[in-house]
Amino acid sequence: KRIRDYGIAIGVLKTGKFNAITDVAGVKVGQVSVVKGESVRTGITAILPHSGNIFQSKVPAAIHIGNGFGKLVGYSQVKELGNIETPIILTNTLSVPVASEALIEYTLNLPRNENVRSVNSVVGETNDGWLNDIRGMHIKKEHVLEAIKEAKEGPVIEGNVGAGTGTICFGYKGGIGTSSRLLPKSLGGYTVGVLVQSNFGGVLEINGVPIAKEFKKYPYRDKILNDADGSCMIVVMTDAPLDARNLERLAKRAIMGLAKTGGIASNGSGDYVIAVSTAENNRLPYETRSMFNLVKLLRNDEKSPLFLATIEATEEAILNSLFAAETMIGRDGHKIEALPLNEVIPLMEKYNKIGQE
Amino acid sequence: KRIRDYGIAIGVLKTGKFNAITDVAGVKVGQVSVVKGESVRTGITAILPHSGNIFQSKVPAAIHIGNGFGKLVGYSQVKELGNIETPIILTNTLSVPVASEALIEYTLNLPRNENVRSVNSVVGETNDGWLNDIRGMHIKKEHVLEAIKEAKEGPVIEGNVGAGTGTICFGYKGGIGTSSRLLPKSLGGYTVGVLVQSNFGGVLEINGVPIAKEFKKYPYRDKILNDADGSCMIVVMTDAPLDARNLERLAKRAIMGLAKTGGIASNGSGDYVIAVSTAENNRLPYETRSMFNLVKLLRNDEKSPLFLATIEATEEAILNSLFAAETMIGRDGHKIEALPLNEVIPLMEKYNKIGQE
Amino acid sequence: KRIRDYGIAIGVLKTGKFNAITDVAGVKVGQVSVVKGESVRTGITAILPHSGNIFQSKVPAAIHIGNGFGKLVGYSQVKELGNIETPIILTNTLSVPVASEALIEYTLNLPRNENVRSVNSVVGETNDGWLNDIRGMHIKKEHVLEAIKEAKEGPVIEGNVGAGTGTICFGYKGGIGTSSRLLPKSLGGYTVGVLVQSNFGGVLEINGVPIAKEFKKYPYRDKILNDADGSCMIVVMTDAPLDARNLERLAKRAIMGLAKTGGIASNGSGDYVIAVSTAENNRLPYETRSMFNLVKLLRNDEKSPLFLATIEATEEAILNSLFAAETMIGRDGHKIEALPLNEVIPLMEKYNKIGQE
Amino acid sequence: KRIRDYGIAIGVLKTGKFNAITDVAGVKVGQVSVVKGESVRTGITAILPHSGNIFQSKVPAAIHIGNGFGKLVGYSQVKELGNIETPIILTNTLSVPVASEALIEYTLNLPRNENVRSVNSVVGETNDGWLNDIRGMHIKKEHVLEAIKEAKEGPVIEGNVGAGTGTICFGYKGGIGTSSRLLPKSLGGYTVGVLVQSNFGGVLEINGVPIAKEFKKYPYRDKILNDADGSCMIVVMTDAPLDARNLERLAKRAIMGLAKTGGIASNGSGDYVIAVSTAENNRLPYETRSMFNLVKLLRNDEKSPLFLATIEATEEAILNSLFAAETMIGRDGHKIEALPLNEVIPLMEKYNKIGQE
Repeated sequence: KRIRDYGIAIGVLKTGKFNAITDVAGVKVGQVSVVKGESVRTGITAILPHSGNIFQSKVPAAIHIGNGFGKLVGYSQVKELGNIETPIILTNTLSVPVASEALIEYTLNLPRNENVRSVNSVVGETNDGWLNDIRGMHIKKEHVLEAIKEAKEGPVIEGNVGAGTGTICFGYKGGIGTSSRLLPKSLGGYTVGVLVQSNFGGVLEINGVPIAKEFKKYPYRDKILNDADGSCMIVVMTDAPLDARNLERLAKRAIMGLAKTGGIASNGSGDYVIAVSTAENNRLPYETRSMFNLVKLLRNDEKSPLFLATIEATEEAILNSLFAAETMIGRDGHKIEALPLNEVIPLMEKYNKIGQE
Repeated sequence: KRIRDYGIAIGVLKTGKFNAITDVAGVKVGQVSVVKGESVRTGITAILPHSGNIFQSKVPAAIHIGNGFGKLVGYSQVKELGNIETPIILTNTLSVPVASEALIEYTLNLPRNENVRSVNSVVGETNDGWLNDIRGMHIKKEHVLEAIKEAKEGPVIEGNVGAGTGTICFGYKGGIGTSSRLLPKSLGGYTVGVLVQSNFGGVLEINGVPIAKEFKKYPYRDKILNDADGSCMIVVMTDAPLDARNLERLAKRAIMGLAKTGGIASNGSGDYVIAVSTAENNRLPYETRSMFNLVKLLRNDEKSPLFLATIEATEEAILNSLFAAETMIGRDGHKIEALPLNEVIPLMEKYNKIGQE
Repeated sequence: KRIRDYGIAIGVLKTGKFNAITDVAGVKVGQVSVVKGESVRTGITAILPHSGNIFQSKVPAAIHIGNGFGKLVGYSQVKELGNIETPIILTNTLSVPVASEALIEYTLNLPRNENVRSVNSVVGETNDGWLNDIRGMHIKKEHVLEAIKEAKEGPVIEGNVGAGTGTICFGYKGGIGTSSRLLPKSLGGYTVGVLVQSNFGGVLEINGVPIAKEFKKYPYRDKILNDADGSCMIVVMTDAPLDARNLERLAKRAIMGLAKTGGIASNGSGDYVIAVSTAENNRLPYETRSMFNLVKLLRNDEKSPLFLATIEATEEAILNSLFAAETMIGRDGHKIEALPLNEVIPLMEKYNKIGQE
Repeated sequence: KRIRDYGIAIGVLKTGKFNAITDVAGVKVGQVSVVKGESVRTGITAILPHSGNIFQSKVPAAIHIGNGFGKLVGYSQVKELGNIETPIILTNTLSVPVASEALIEYTLNLPRNENVRSVNSVVGETNDGWLNDIRGMHIKKEHVLEAIKEAKEGPVIEGNVGAGTGTICFGYKGGIGTSSRLLPKSLGGYTVGVLVQSNFGGVLEINGVPIAKEFKKYPYRDKILNDADGSCMIVVMTDAPLDARNLERLAKRAIMGLAKTGGIASNGSGDYVIAVSTAENNRLPYETRSMFNLVKLLRNDEKSPLFLATIEATEEAILNSLFAAETMIGRDGHKIEALPLNEVIPLMEKYNKIGQE
């Protein structure tokens, strides 16, 4: 069950049909979990902004660095040119290179790309090294290619899956989570979808209920520096027609959603937000005879509802990852418990947060 | 009464003595309210990192732009050189130039500055134009100089005072608010103090209680685009020995505190965070015979508790501004109500948020 | 005579009609020099991207900070929103506030702006304090308003005029300079115009001729740290349809033009580039019933010729400022010589740089 | 012969002993060229800031993005934490992932790193796809590990070597180039060393002599858009004690040196500068019992000579790459000529640039 199924509503805006990043038309998600023996707990999550040849039909995009202790690749070209030309891959920290190489090969081998000699792969990561034998580098190119191939529309599996297989969030088992918001027609009727790979720490709050405080479980509590570190990869998709400048602004708001769960973007965090506009008319052809792009862009003044949507969907996506993830035992017998819903739900009731509209 | 006086505790860390920015040793605050007739509702708030000649003894500093729809001056030199050389002044949007000029004159006229010909004034602002006749430009240099002169340590007046005289926050009367956090000795024993000029919108939450939702009062609710715009100036002081790079990281966390009150950094917001380290040994002399600065800096790894402290103090400072501000009538008879505590406190009880430790 | 009149051609592209920023259709420049008695040597240069109400019809823009030891105002809102809404004013360091206030008043008082309560003034500066009694703050609002009012198309006066009245460049008298480049039709036929306020140091080269080396006049030569400090304000206008992201890229190239004159962007330099697209169809109306902007933008791939044009025009604008400026005596009898053309021209001949095509 | 051997002196400062990046004490360079059959023309250049375990003893560092059309990895963590923890690897565009993976494995396998689970590899690239079968991905991990292993102090081979094996610069054969500057004792006595992988375009000038203009060989000349694209990777090392903020400033100046060769940082360029301080006392231990770093930093005011040194060394390093590179035939019979020194030297004489001091 997802958080909303408990009668817990995050924010004030409505969700899309699946309450998932795939509510943005055309967006697909593919996931491959790599779980072997007692110490391999990792995987790949691929997010595709559209089903075509992305290199030939690039999408406006921006990346915001919430805290840069991470190894995401692809940043500078997205910043300079304002677009993304590959699927987005999430994985573990030390498997970024193999995922990047797989994206390059995938792109080179697509029809029409026979003469392409430069590819800006976009790969994000968090560190699943507590549960996963990360030094063993168990991700192979085939896992990446399979995740892309299997990507599909519709509901997205959450929790211990894909790039979220071995992640930890607020000391509990984290993973993949997703959510979406649908703006009313009067505000444009756009959809914002978010997918997260949650692997960070802080002082957990669920819809304003002080879970960590109640459990007396949070960093810095007992003069001992418990680790708040970790990372969160956040992918934001929208069908609103935004250019790179406004997508960067949208991306910054996702960190505000993370903040509402109690995340603090600790020193050791790699918190990145990748924001993409899927608006069909604004795609950027690789080759064209025109010197110009004709684009229809939402005015600055119309952005605020999208900001709110991004904040809400990010908060809920993180909470969904916690609600979906299950207890896992991994490397060296390390065990990370799932969020104890049997204790959390009574707390949500104590604070009168169940059954709200 | 401040929010904490109601038994409402924000976060998990302890506050400093005054729960104010002035808990950071040596920091002073001076405020001048300019209220005249039926339409002048504005003022000046000055924050001094130390009591000496700041130009001669500069302080490491950084400015983070949460959302840049604002007129703050001083940004680029702080970014380039990593320090601040004047008091920090907050005022209204159209009075930035006069405040900047006053800071320059103040600096030129200090003893030892007789040959100074370049001054980087730092002035922030929010727009109080709904309650205040902002086009009338009622701030004069004398107001600025008086605020600096009157600056003092100890408790800070909050609400409708100084630069917060005419501001509006979440549709209620906003203003000046402050708070602080004191880290345990084991984490360094540092203090983080925050002062805000609250003038922004969003979907108000108080310590996780959905006030706006309960009151059915928030932007975008009824297909009508109610204004979420506005701005928030945030000043963060700490005695922790941080350089500009790490102060910028601290500054970014303040926006996460703002997020927890329901702020969304809307399109029209000028949300800036000015972060300063007051650590005495790391001050930068204007003139010296040495080619070097010898500095003792907190390691990156030790930053996370300061991040948490900044987030908590910012959230509480904003809430304090709302709790302190009183109903005001201003320009053209515009009336902005204070936060209705008689309705809010029962809601805090409904959500079981009163009387917590 | 301008440098080109000596048969010295900078770069490979053609100039516009006036070889001035005003070659960009609609751009106007107005200048007021404030010279009084023995120690007032300063002024105002105003650059208008078009002749209409700029607040009501904003222009896409970006500001690049080459080195941020300066007091330019307006940076953050241009960065966030991607546009400029006032004329651009250049003046001396300590007169930025008065110029900013004048721009605000100018804007508030324009027809149709009766309800405007927020104005992002853009003011740049360099420090003319060696020749000018800068601490005396001799610029008044009237000077700014007059510069705007008198702005006109056509040739631009260079040298000791307006904001360049009291500036120093490479140890010689600097000032205002301008130049332009016109791309061939096959590359779009666009014009790039540049105007500079030159007040910086380094190791002077003129079209590749090592003037400073020949004169044995440059910083750091004799174990003595001669001052290379100073600043350069650069304004770039183009009729090419660029958005803020690509204007920022254009702005970065101007610093490459500065480099070719021997400038080093020294520690104490405030080197800023303000880039604006005047393309009529892409202007941003303040008020509109549409949620959208329909824009026609030059593709990334078509940018490089504009980059080259910007580099060349900036180099030539700086050299023009040096060729036009005349020897000046100012504050405390300080005397700054004009570039000694009688010695420079023979050097240009020695290095075979005269009479080239 | 290097450019200086022809009596052509770039700039006004003295070079170090080898006029190479290795003049900075402790810096090592290792290069592996991968040349096979008719179409493999690529390689690896490794730069080591010191000979120890760089992960355990990190170096202050910054990366400046001149133009971000490139695939450099490692940017965000360097930006956030201000240091580099691996050797720096340069290679071709599509081999960045394999080089990154090799750096990770190298680091994981060093003694004392047995528990390391996060490595921020720094890899830069340019695109050698005209001469090299880049799609074939001929770089293997072993090449990277060998380049690191073979790295040594002393003279550096230039031209068609390592990562410069297959690059093209201004239409001629480019490659690896290096240069250094030694400041006089009175200015600190520091060394700045630069190494470039030259693969970019523009309008070639050599020490101010308009080579491209004389040869009538430059982009945009004949209404035809000749390609100015390409990239330049620049690595700057210095023993001056600078923190990340000031290293970023240093890095920005390298692009000014590139500008003086006629480079324009075209749209398709990936122009990055990696700047590192090797000052021993400021290295950052991975593990330590102290909460603090005690650092001795050069004051802002002392930076300008280092800026000039960086500009000069970058310009000369690029020219050295051109002087050293030899004509090459590669993929599909593509042939790129070396800079025709037999024509260039007479031009240098025509412009009186030979035999200068």
